Amino acid sequence: MSLLVVGSVALDTVETPFGRVTDVIGGSAVYFSASASVFHPVQLVGVVGSDYPIEQLDFLARRGVDLAGLERAEGESFRWSGFYDFDLNNAQTRGRRLGVGAEFRPHIPEPFRDAEWVFLASTDPDLQSEVLDQVRSPRLVACDTMDHWIESKRDALLRLLGRVDVLLINEAEIRRLSNEYNLVSAARWTQARGPEYVVVKKGEHGAMLFTSELVFFTPGYPLESIFDPTGAGDAFAGGFLGHLARAGEVTADELRRAMVFGSVMGSFVVERFGVDRLVGLTHEEIEERVVAFREMTAFEHRWPARAHV
Amino acid sequence: MSLLVVGSVALDTVETPFGRVTDVIGGSAVYFSASASVFHPVQLVGVVGSDYPIEQLDFLARRGVDLAGLERAEGESFRWSGFYDFDLNNAQTRGRRLGVGAEFRPHIPEPFRDAEWVFLASTDPDLQSEVLDQVRSPRLVACDTMDHWIESKRDALLRLLGRVDVLLINEAEIRRLSNEYNLVSAARWTQARGPEYVVVKKGEHGAMLFTSELVFFTPGYPLESIFDPTGAGDAFAGGFLGHLARAGEVTADELRRAMVFGSVMGSFVVERFGVDRLVGLTHEEIEERVVAFREMTAFEHRWPARAHV
Repeated sequence: MSLLVVGSVALDTVETPFGRVTDVIGGSAVYFSASASVFHPVQLVGVVGSDYPIEQLDFLARRGVDLAGLERAEGESFRWSGFYDFDLNNAQTRGRRLGVGAEFRPHIPEPFRDAEWVFLASTDPDLQSEVLDQVRSPRLVACDTMDHWIESKRDALLRLLGRVDVLLINEAEIRRLSNEYNLVSAARWTQARGPEYVVVKKGEHGAMLFTSELVFFTPGYPLESIFDPTGAGDAFAGGFLGHLARAGEVTADELRRAMVFGSVMGSFVVERFGVDRLVGLTHEEIEERVVAFREMTAFEHRWPARAHV
Repeated sequence: MSLLVVGSVALDTVETPFGRVTDVIGGSAVYFSASASVFHPVQLVGVVGSDYPIEQLDFLARRGVDLAGLERAEGESFRWSGFYDFDLNNAQTRGRRLGVGAEFRPHIPEPFRDAEWVFLASTDPDLQSEVLDQVRSPRLVACDTMDHWIESKRDALLRLLGRVDVLLINEAEIRRLSNEYNLVSAARWTQARGPEYVVVKKGEHGAMLFTSELVFFTPGYPLESIFDPTGAGDAFAGGFLGHLARAGEVTADELRRAMVFGSVMGSFVVERFGVDRLVGLTHEEIEERVVAFREMTAFEHRWPARAHV
């Protein structure tokens, strides 16, 4: 029942209206693992350079993230630098130095090749496919992508979509991918290319899950201060897949809960810079927020005995 | 327990990607009444010119809308002409001819002055206040507004807000009103100026209710074809207030249901041009859609006995 993530392990420099942090641990695989490991053990595959403060990943190991697939290469680690404007929805990239990430070809360690649950974080879709070639018989494969790959490697991305079960993608990106403005149409277009489940992430507006049977909706958690949106999407994916791996089945009910746990984890990560908020997160805090999400949408439907007309 | 609406009764010419209609009945009071009257009798105050096809309002009278406050003046009716781009979120106004609306000063007929539930559709906030001067002891007053009044009559609008219980307003408008980008902050700012309840309408992204005790969220109904968004906000207000008037009390539970009925009515009106979809709408159809809204957000929370960490 193992859960595998392949993605970036980076050093981020981030500026938001609330402050600035320099070279903090980040990257999609780190945010995903920090989130998913609350629910289920995780196997991580990625690469860092010789300058990476590897001991800062100890908190992941302590909660069941197997770092045996974390390659340490000679050279600089992948660094991303960006800032968020007041709207806090879109990251503006200032700089990106691939470092050892430039030559990275994911090698899945033998013990990880039996992974049942797989998350392919956003990267070159050809590399995402290479990962899948190495996993023997995954039960559920999810992937993310971004504008850059939609534009520059569309054919490879479409080939990949034919092999995955879940696509997690931003609102703007699925519109670009499908050339459909309407999200229902965009999701249906995408499902026809492969993924049975399409999760559209809408930032402050929440997230939507489209399956052949249901549309499910989680709101954005109403935070007055979003400290740092970095990693929200990967933390969402971590809650989503971490819950499914824990549940061990992909039913409509578990998918609904997975959406809620994804939203909950995304709502926590933005409350502090980097992964800070996830490090000491307790089950009681998660539980409380699940209840808060339910309170935000639950209603009792009591149709009056006597209607007016 | 009467429900009073004061607003425009207009002739609309609308173009969307799905077609065009000319001089169809519209206006905020018509959309509101067509929606609210499904739930509760309505008293309508407004003005039309001598050219208005008044018989087309017969369907309102048949379902309990008292048109005794509909003034018929010499001259042309208020006409609005606009179109919607592919995004269908924002109306682009092509033309606006006030006609008899230019000189309209709302006169509330004596029998309407005991109204308990009041909706002041968007217009000059000084006129909205004049309406309130004539209503003796309303139990709940709701109002809408728009960019034009936020910009040109800010002081009058702020005076009005001090007298109302509910503000229903678009996302972009509340940001402009409050100069706060974050919607939680914008809602708190607004509540501090008077309205205990703030409803933020976000089009395809749904709607949010802020009270001192809760934040409640309804998604946008996932329609693949939005035929004509005109009137969605007023139909929402009609479902919201129509339900509260029917329920006869403003509790947290009834407010939640009011949000759902508002969203349901808004989701119907956009399926056809003008008010067409509301004319023959049955309670069974409404009931079905309430269930669909519940299916979109309801989840059973079953925390596992054994957590992973």
